[in-house]
Amino acid sequence: MPDPGLFDGVLARGPVRAEVDDRAWLQAMLDVEAALARAQGSPHAAAIAGACQSELYDIARVGAEAALSANPVVALVGALRERVGAEAAGDVHRGATSQDILDSAAMLMANRALGPLLDDLRCAADAAATLAERHRATPMAGRTLLQQAVPTTFGLKAAGWMTALDAAAARLDAVRRERLAVQLGGGAGTLAAFGDGGPELVAALARELGLAEPVLPWHTDRTRIAELASALGEACGAAGKPAADLVLLAQNEVGEVREADQPGRGGSSAMPHKRNPVAAISVLACARDAPGLVATLLACMVGEHERAAGAWQAEWRPLAELLRLTGSAAAWLRDGLERVEVDAERMAQNLKDLERSYPLAEAVPPAAALVDRALRARRA
Amino acid sequence: MPDPGLFDGVLARGPVRAEVDDRAWLQAMLDVEAALARAQGSPHAAAIAGACQSELYDIARVGAEAALSANPVVALVGALRERVGAEAAGDVHRGATSQDILDSAAMLMANRALGPLLDDLRCAADAAATLAERHRATPMAGRTLLQQAVPTTFGLKAAGWMTALDAAAARLDAVRRERLAVQLGGGAGTLAAFGDGGPELVAALARELGLAEPVLPWHTDRTRIAELASALGEACGAAGKPAADLVLLAQNEVGEVREADQPGRGGSSAMPHKRNPVAAISVLACARDAPGLVATLLACMVGEHERAAGAWQAEWRPLAELLRLTGSAAAWLRDGLERVEVDAERMAQNLKDLERSYPLAEAVPPAAALVDRALRARRA
Amino acid sequence: MPDPGLFDGVLARGPVRAEVDDRAWLQAMLDVEAALARAQGSPHAAAIAGACQSELYDIARVGAEAALSANPVVALVGALRERVGAEAAGDVHRGATSQDILDSAAMLMANRALGPLLDDLRCAADAAATLAERHRATPMAGRTLLQQAVPTTFGLKAAGWMTALDAAAARLDAVRRERLAVQLGGGAGTLAAFGDGGPELVAALARELGLAEPVLPWHTDRTRIAELASALGEACGAAGKPAADLVLLAQNEVGEVREADQPGRGGSSAMPHKRNPVAAISVLACARDAPGLVATLLACMVGEHERAAGAWQAEWRPLAELLRLTGSAAAWLRDGLERVEVDAERMAQNLKDLERSYPLAEAVPPAAALVDRALRARRA
Amino acid sequence: MPDPGLFDGVLARGPVRAEVDDRAWLQAMLDVEAALARAQGSPHAAAIAGACQSELYDIARVGAEAALSANPVVALVGALRERVGAEAAGDVHRGATSQDILDSAAMLMANRALGPLLDDLRCAADAAATLAERHRATPMAGRTLLQQAVPTTFGLKAAGWMTALDAAAARLDAVRRERLAVQLGGGAGTLAAFGDGGPELVAALARELGLAEPVLPWHTDRTRIAELASALGEACGAAGKPAADLVLLAQNEVGEVREADQPGRGGSSAMPHKRNPVAAISVLACARDAPGLVATLLACMVGEHERAAGAWQAEWRPLAELLRLTGSAAAWLRDGLERVEVDAERMAQNLKDLERSYPLAEAVPPAAALVDRALRARRA
Repeated sequence: MPDPGLFDGVLARGPVRAEVDDRAWLQAMLDVEAALARAQGSPHAAAIAGACQSELYDIARVGAEAALSANPVVALVGALRERVGAEAAGDVHRGATSQDILDSAAMLMANRALGPLLDDLRCAADAAATLAERHRATPMAGRTLLQQAVPTTFGLKAAGWMTALDAAAARLDAVRRERLAVQLGGGAGTLAAFGDGGPELVAALARELGLAEPVLPWHTDRTRIAELASALGEACGAAGKPAADLVLLAQNEVGEVREADQPGRGGSSAMPHKRNPVAAISVLACARDAPGLVATLLACMVGEHERAAGAWQAEWRPLAELLRLTGSAAAWLRDGLERVEVDAERMAQNLKDLERSYPLAEAVPPAAALVDRALRARRA
Repeated sequence: MPDPGLFDGVLARGPVRAEVDDRAWLQAMLDVEAALARAQGSPHAAAIAGACQSELYDIARVGAEAALSANPVVALVGALRERVGAEAAGDVHRGATSQDILDSAAMLMANRALGPLLDDLRCAADAAATLAERHRATPMAGRTLLQQAVPTTFGLKAAGWMTALDAAAARLDAVRRERLAVQLGGGAGTLAAFGDGGPELVAALARELGLAEPVLPWHTDRTRIAELASALGEACGAAGKPAADLVLLAQNEVGEVREADQPGRGGSSAMPHKRNPVAAISVLACARDAPGLVATLLACMVGEHERAAGAWQAEWRPLAELLRLTGSAAAWLRDGLERVEVDAERMAQNLKDLERSYPLAEAVPPAAALVDRALRARRA
Repeated sequence: MPDPGLFDGVLARGPVRAEVDDRAWLQAMLDVEAALARAQGSPHAAAIAGACQSELYDIARVGAEAALSANPVVALVGALRERVGAEAAGDVHRGATSQDILDSAAMLMANRALGPLLDDLRCAADAAATLAERHRATPMAGRTLLQQAVPTTFGLKAAGWMTALDAAAARLDAVRRERLAVQLGGGAGTLAAFGDGGPELVAALARELGLAEPVLPWHTDRTRIAELASALGEACGAAGKPAADLVLLAQNEVGEVREADQPGRGGSSAMPHKRNPVAAISVLACARDAPGLVATLLACMVGEHERAAGAWQAEWRPLAELLRLTGSAAAWLRDGLERVEVDAERMAQNLKDLERSYPLAEAVPPAAALVDRALRARRA
Repeated sequence: MPDPGLFDGVLARGPVRAEVDDRAWLQAMLDVEAALARAQGSPHAAAIAGACQSELYDIARVGAEAALSANPVVALVGALRERVGAEAAGDVHRGATSQDILDSAAMLMANRALGPLLDDLRCAADAAATLAERHRATPMAGRTLLQQAVPTTFGLKAAGWMTALDAAAARLDAVRRERLAVQLGGGAGTLAAFGDGGPELVAALARELGLAEPVLPWHTDRTRIAELASALGEACGAAGKPAADLVLLAQNEVGEVREADQPGRGGSSAMPHKRNPVAAISVLACARDAPGLVATLLACMVGEHERAAGAWQAEWRPLAELLRLTGSAAAWLRDGLERVEVDAERMAQNLKDLERSYPLAEAVPPAAALVDRALRARRA
């Protein structure tokens, strides 16, 4: 794992961070170059692949030279060609354009990041399911507009978290399986540089990289990026909802849940007595940062002709950041839900006033039955 | 059709506008109330349904009274009960809460709006397909970063529009079929007011309204709204891309396309000689307004407990506006693509410099083959 | 006042709504045309002004015809010319372009809306100041990360609301005074249609309309719109903060504030016992919708050449909506703060645990002194 | 200067990058701690200041430990105390809370970043002014909705860029001078930990750090952040507008401007003949990413009680990123405008058709006079 940055403990928890940093981008770009040489059947493919190790390249130099062409691929290809020597150089990046490499690398990176991200998201949903089952009939106050309304059960609340997390995970998984495709088109997306063999080469490259094969080069069709971004935004929102509930339930005056003790955790620099719900807070921070990034990526769908002047380049940072944030939200929520301590007694106590108007004997069974129904549907 | 507003000619073209205005919201709310009475087997169901005609109610009065409860349902239910008389009144809104009505109405409204919206979006995609086929081998300059790059064909450009529009339509259609569900939960979403019969009632209500039946009440799980919003944002982006290309191609200095003449259209108040590409411009305006609305709706996923204090109420306007904008973008793009005039000669002329380095005999056949491939895949 | 729409009771409280609807836009456009004729010293100025009454025009017809030119000005000018007759017709809209009229109208509309909007915002700040003074030494728990932290006073909390509202009002007022300028440039913003007299005409038009005179036509420089939008977004955020606090303090389990009773207010369709903090909730809804609209308007700064193809047209709805939302947030917050009931006893009770570690005798005087300081600074 | 990241050549040009990275954040936090000890007159102030060098601390360790408290201050204070030894340790961070340090550090960082950022922004405006002056009477086609409209001059176009850049710089400068204030409040913002001396300490700390002294601690009043963010967003928009024009003017079919040759610059990995306007493209990329970040920061104004659970933590990344992007946009635009080559002959040629209807003798002098007027106003 690369070293965490100053805020990464809060905003970039879990394994996704390592899959979307500059080193991961660079490696993904190199993986695409290596796969392209292999897919083209280059006799130098092995040599090229051997040179496609990100640690052989200086990110700072590639990054600085990126200023000359408004993308880092030109510099990287130059360095790669130099490394493989004159004979193999011609087989590096043959027929490809910068956007082919970066778009395919973005898809590869997303695919890699979505593995652990989905693991954490599903474990968070599992943790919600466990809470739902365990507390299917644990009465608590249902609160609407932050006022006590009628009784519900903590299990039903948790089941609502679960269905949202499951929906978000299902959507992300579908995007991952169906929409992460290789991009290869050459200069203007015609595949002309490959003669008659373009489509077959695209198929071979897709196989090499474990990505889908698109019907057409998609350099001008950003629906794939848009669906990925939206699904990430949806996952952040689905994670933010239980976090909001947990933070509210953890208020001293409510006291119905708390994060389990861990040495040193939840403390404050000024108030050592505090136990802050750091997991939930950290989820909420990520959930707040996500929608603006989704909006940016949706706006970037509208670009000029065969390669956008600005809209394409503007995708790189928000996409990586959105993956990182969503990964962090999923990892933190999993932690928060797996470690939450539920105070059923306090729930019962807070409910007393409400109980007079709404007897629990009438309120709890339907809620518990709904939980059972949701859990059954989930298992099916 | 209701009267257009001052900017509706530009920003709310087509039939969707009528499906998402206040009258449509009100009717959808009333339809939910009528369906609820029917689904509950009320002996007054017919009388209630008879009173559920939006023209019987004063939007202004309901809207003004909405201030008392932070939603318009309380006032509407009061007026509806008054209208049906004392005996039937008890069967109006029985067991439901305001959010049940508004959430279900939003889904109903979305379902109704998506019909004509998808029609226009698909016709726009069809128009792109027709252009793709007709111009599969019409050479033009491929332009990257707004610089001439290598030759492509106009058909391939149009095929790229088509795949994006098809993807957006497919996604919207999937959301429509799978994610537009009825909401019914009562006070805190437990269905307790309906005793044992809650889930059956939800199923019956879903059938009545032609909406999906959710596993759980989804008042706290906003993934449905998020997916709908995202899919609309994606559709706006997919529509904006061809519009951006058309506006650029219509520049006097490029002159490769123009919108067909129509009396009075494309004129300017100061410059009568101009012919502005109004369809494409109007699409672009909608595409610019959409991403911020999607971001708002994604952020609203994070709400408090069993009914959000602000986040729920904040959904109403952006959702209707997003449907309206996307409907307008689809209708305008359809118009623009169906009426575009392509100047193949000018395309050829603009290409002359490029042709010297990139002979058309090498560039055009692969592009045309890609078009054929995309059209075949579309038909399959 | 025009009739409220279905959600206007919640989302469009107060007088701003009437200043930004279609009728207000139309009147502002007509006011610009009338002022232009006067500023040009047309002998038909009075006749033209007489015809510049919005009730003489059919919004629906203008709105429908707007589709022909991608803006409603061409149609409106046509109708106005028809109405004033052949002789005066030539002096209508002389030398102007559509954007001149719409941009100037937008500024006029903003100027009119900001009057009552600032009134409500300042009254909200005054109400916060009153609370700050009255409760300068009313102890309550300070809460960080929604956990009780150390004692503070309710007055200091209210003083924080006050400084933010004052800052937002000061910023909006500065934008109103300095940045709302008339736009006049003609076809491409050169003022060429007015010969040598362009700048003087701009000055005269500015005087007529009570707007600032810009150094240059600003059709391509959208910083005025951006600053207005940002200041509105800031005001919504400043209003949202106290609303968030009020909603949290009004929780049954906290019980430190509530909105004063009003017949019929705060009720629920399913739970008649509830008293929902509708003012605060309605503020929060507006505050959630604002940021996305600000982002849209900022993004619209980047347009093409002398009139943007999409980015300009995309400004109309978000600008009006942002004014309406901010007006509503200000009106609701004023209502909420003027009518809030503070339960100092409950505050004291909730504070008991904290008091043991942090004696009030040490905590309260510094907080009260800070309140005094802020109130003194405000008066100065 | 720290090493550039993979995309920094494109998206983080210029000196701002170094002022907003993790190292800069850490140093700013340490500077606040050192200044606090000095302002408190600690006898260990010098020792503490000596230990407040960011290179003495391991960002990775602080970042990892940040997970325990949802912010990096607790870990940093621990490390700093350890380093200064037991005797001085008690004078480190005395009476402060984490948010005091991070908020003050954010202001310090912004202040440092805005220096070079404003330099670049003003130089870009100067370059626009130079173009305006030089080409005050260089005729070119005015283009509205991307159609040739009436003649204008390139100088007037550039003067429009200038006024927008000047306005954005003026606004940013005002925010820098007036709104960047120190934050100090302790646990809940009461200054109680400092007894009577709180306000004086705040004043002293402000002097130490060269920041404004606020009337109240502003931990709950985020208008400062909102105004800073908005002003940065406005600057990005003002920079994006000329970039959009330059990219359009550089189209082969228009050919009215180009970026001056520089060895290796503007090339493509697939098409060596191309000369891409990399400066303008890079500006546009930044301008597209900014609005979503502004929206996020505006939404974060609405937080809970005395320290927000999520909304505060969500500010850190977008604020730094927005400074970085705006710095890059300013640096790139300066480069682009200083190096632009204007082809007045091509402008004249593109204008020929238009000239027939709109003689230059009538169009150019008013445009040139407007330029003179704007330049005079600028000098004044």
